[in-house]
Amino acid sequence: MVNPVSRREFLNLLAATGGTAAALSAGSALNLLPSSASAASLDLLNLGSKQRKVAILGGGISGLTAAYELSKQGYECTVLEASHRCGGRVLTLRHGDLIDEIGNRQYCEFDDEPHMYFNAGAARIPSTHRNLLAYCKELNVELEVFINENKTSLVQDDDMLGGRPIRNIDYTTNMRGFMAELMAKAMNSDELNAPFTESEAETLLNMIRSFGDLNEQDLYSGSYRAGYAEGGVLKHGVQKDMIAFRDLLRSRLGRQMMGANEGDTGPILMQPVGGMDKIISGFLNNVGEQVKYRAMVTSVQVTDKGVNVAYDQDGVRHSLEVDYCFNCIPTHLMVGIDHNFPSDYVKAMKYVRRGEAYKAAFQAKRRFWEDLDIYGGISWSNTKSRQLWYPTHGIHKAKGIVLSAYDYGGGMYHTMMSQDERIEAHLADHEKIHPDFRELVEKPVTIGWHRMNHMLGCSARWSRNLGRGWTDEEETLYYTLQAPVNGRHYFIGDQISMHSAWQESAVMSAKWALSHMDAHVRAELA
Amino acid sequence: MVNPVSRREFLNLLAATGGTAAALSAGSALNLLPSSASAASLDLLNLGSKQRKVAILGGGISGLTAAYELSKQGYECTVLEASHRCGGRVLTLRHGDLIDEIGNRQYCEFDDEPHMYFNAGAARIPSTHRNLLAYCKELNVELEVFINENKTSLVQDDDMLGGRPIRNIDYTTNMRGFMAELMAKAMNSDELNAPFTESEAETLLNMIRSFGDLNEQDLYSGSYRAGYAEGGVLKHGVQKDMIAFRDLLRSRLGRQMMGANEGDTGPILMQPVGGMDKIISGFLNNVGEQVKYRAMVTSVQVTDKGVNVAYDQDGVRHSLEVDYCFNCIPTHLMVGIDHNFPSDYVKAMKYVRRGEAYKAAFQAKRRFWEDLDIYGGISWSNTKSRQLWYPTHGIHKAKGIVLSAYDYGGGMYHTMMSQDERIEAHLADHEKIHPDFRELVEKPVTIGWHRMNHMLGCSARWSRNLGRGWTDEEETLYYTLQAPVNGRHYFIGDQISMHSAWQESAVMSAKWALSHMDAHVRAELA
Repeated sequence: MVNPVSRREFLNLLAATGGTAAALSAGSALNLLPSSASAASLDLLNLGSKQRKVAILGGGISGLTAAYELSKQGYECTVLEASHRCGGRVLTLRHGDLIDEIGNRQYCEFDDEPHMYFNAGAARIPSTHRNLLAYCKELNVELEVFINENKTSLVQDDDMLGGRPIRNIDYTTNMRGFMAELMAKAMNSDELNAPFTESEAETLLNMIRSFGDLNEQDLYSGSYRAGYAEGGVLKHGVQKDMIAFRDLLRSRLGRQMMGANEGDTGPILMQPVGGMDKIISGFLNNVGEQVKYRAMVTSVQVTDKGVNVAYDQDGVRHSLEVDYCFNCIPTHLMVGIDHNFPSDYVKAMKYVRRGEAYKAAFQAKRRFWEDLDIYGGISWSNTKSRQLWYPTHGIHKAKGIVLSAYDYGGGMYHTMMSQDERIEAHLADHEKIHPDFRELVEKPVTIGWHRMNHMLGCSARWSRNLGRGWTDEEETLYYTLQAPVNGRHYFIGDQISMHSAWQESAVMSAKWALSHMDAHVRAELA
Repeated sequence: MVNPVSRREFLNLLAATGGTAAALSAGSALNLLPSSASAASLDLLNLGSKQRKVAILGGGISGLTAAYELSKQGYECTVLEASHRCGGRVLTLRHGDLIDEIGNRQYCEFDDEPHMYFNAGAARIPSTHRNLLAYCKELNVELEVFINENKTSLVQDDDMLGGRPIRNIDYTTNMRGFMAELMAKAMNSDELNAPFTESEAETLLNMIRSFGDLNEQDLYSGSYRAGYAEGGVLKHGVQKDMIAFRDLLRSRLGRQMMGANEGDTGPILMQPVGGMDKIISGFLNNVGEQVKYRAMVTSVQVTDKGVNVAYDQDGVRHSLEVDYCFNCIPTHLMVGIDHNFPSDYVKAMKYVRRGEAYKAAFQAKRRFWEDLDIYGGISWSNTKSRQLWYPTHGIHKAKGIVLSAYDYGGGMYHTMMSQDERIEAHLADHEKIHPDFRELVEKPVTIGWHRMNHMLGCSARWSRNLGRGWTDEEETLYYTLQAPVNGRHYFIGDQISMHSAWQESAVMSAKWALSHMDAHVRAELA
């Protein structure tokens, strides 16, 4: 994201740049279709009668991927999970579940029904996340579409229209109209127009008109795309009043509303039917007996022949001698556990920072959003709660769970509050969007991921120059931590990726480590 | 849609218009949220011990709405359906179903599985279609999301990039970039810039940058939003090559790709789980015993006291004396059936024209689109087949049904062909998008709605000045046909709406007629 610039700066900036559409002469596009049409292959050697033991530290997505793949090939796996549950940041909250936030333990009181759940961590699967999707298919995890952007949902900003919420479609339709008007006018400039042939200019102008729904004078004068104020079926539709450009520009949410869904949220998104942890259940259906819960690792010692792991479980110290160890304990916690890792490894472990992320949800007493033609998607506000997610699933059922805060990056704001203060903050924020929000919801849950027991942080953050690329040192540290210690100990998880906070990265990290280990095993057995 | 204009015309047009952003001073927006949060109310009098008979001619959505609502209030209803099935243009094709296209009868050979169906008529329910959605809820029709636009789907045009298909996201990301570049440059113009305050210009420029993902020089130089050519998780992502603006402008599909989803397809779309005709089943669960199939109406005579209807069923002539008649027989067929309607009514019946619409579908032997990260949505091509729809439902199952042609407005092109020629045309068209399409599909069905038995046309077309509004005469004819004959005979269906081709319009038309009749009944009984 580019920072706001002053009027002077931006005029200088424009003056400094060349003519429009330099890219008219750019080369042709390559690699537009993916070269490979399948998930990363994993061709692990089956051990047959050979014996190999593996310790897997942590039962999140990466650890379970390792346990699942290794078990298929005859490895004897033990998964040590510090908490009472597997899944890590894949956490689906239902009736009776514990939210183990340190200093704010809660039990979820949602109604006990299949659709009454809240994906408090991972919540969306992009259609491009092939490795995770391949497991969903293999593990028979049924998927359904997840609605992210919804044109009937709402946008609210105290600075815009006196704080009155408007429809996403009203915002975007009007803004597109004014943008198109600006572009159509721009094409009247000889300088801007010069590079185009007559045919190109025609195509472009027609597209611009279509983009903004301009009138016959190439001006924007409102559009039926935003829906009608009334009528439209049995009588002619009465067009809604146009929103003034000036009013739209009062809100800083424009960059959010008009920016494309980026990267992972651009493609179709999906979710497992019944909760994200159905993926965890899918793995556990195969490797559940290998998991030891409340097993806290106290020591990891790498030797020439393998790895010795010590852990406490229910007050008893245990030890485990294994050939290989896959470790997805967050590196910032692992630094405090006894180990004999080399110093460059430790330096890398200490370098990785952790994001703060905060979410909250309420049970809605009725699906009030459906009365407003809203089925799934996100309403945006310029508040600290930021987002209000309506569930895609459970259409027309009696109740549903609404995500009522998603504060990424500044999660400390809410976690410095008491539970009651957090709840009040969200009620007050969302009353601006739905005036009777306070009466419509109940049974809140909140979760500060940087305070969750055994995690104390959200996704790994490698780069300290966000948006300006990684430094050479960061590159070195990353590849140091990706490589195994003595060929025996592998760090895994989305923390060992350049794209943290996605299940896909956890899976890919595990698959990379497994392939690497496999080469080691094949060499040993050759 | 605005027609293409010549270079000269558009320069004249631009010269003739005033300064940019005249709308800066437009009034505030009103009516941005719907005034009513529920479906149109229907408060019909319950007859109690009173007797009223009703004939309903045609078992489509409007007829079934009438039968359902009237039955609830004690009316004795008879639904006369000319064909072997109810639903009209709500037609879900499954294993063994007859496609009763005159001159091209087919039986559907899809595999016999719950997800292997093709909604050959109505296929999408917008979240704003409250009246239909209210029936889905009331009739326990389970709904799921329907994916219409999908950024991973494909765009193909022989004139663009040598006919190579590209991703929707490649097209749109690059086009947005160039559009934003054009806008950013435009803001360097004093004339265009003049109306903005410094703060507004900053907000706008920042939004433009976000819209197109411009670089620090406010130029477009490619974007990771289109995905990476490689990497992005375990290694840094390598940005895809930018597509040249000139290349994008070679395709006339730009207006389609960059125009907003308009009107009804802007909001979230849904479909019933298992097929659109689950709505029909929902009605029939309540009023199924009132339907007479293969009952062809031969005469409709309106009297002062009611309506006399004659019909043939299985070679036998029957007659029916009723108090009220609701008629959704297409008006262009009703004109040929014996009746005693007044002349202005007949004039209106004869005025309404019918659209031609053609669809085709294949069974896919495997879900090849999922290998390309495509889950639902539409690929577009500049061919006569136009669209290729991948099913949203049945994710990760073995097979699926793909819509392989949707030709609206020019449906005659394909229906002048034999069945084999139609199929070959679609195979050839879609080989341009998926090179092995021919090998991937089987068991085609095609359907020309203007040749379907008992319909001979798709949606009603009232206005002959499309895009330029209705004439006064058309208004008069429309309201003439909406009004009942003698207060006894009502035409209903999406044909009696200004927004044909949607189930919502059929429902609303029926509800309007029912309310009107109810007033008549209340007056009689008062």
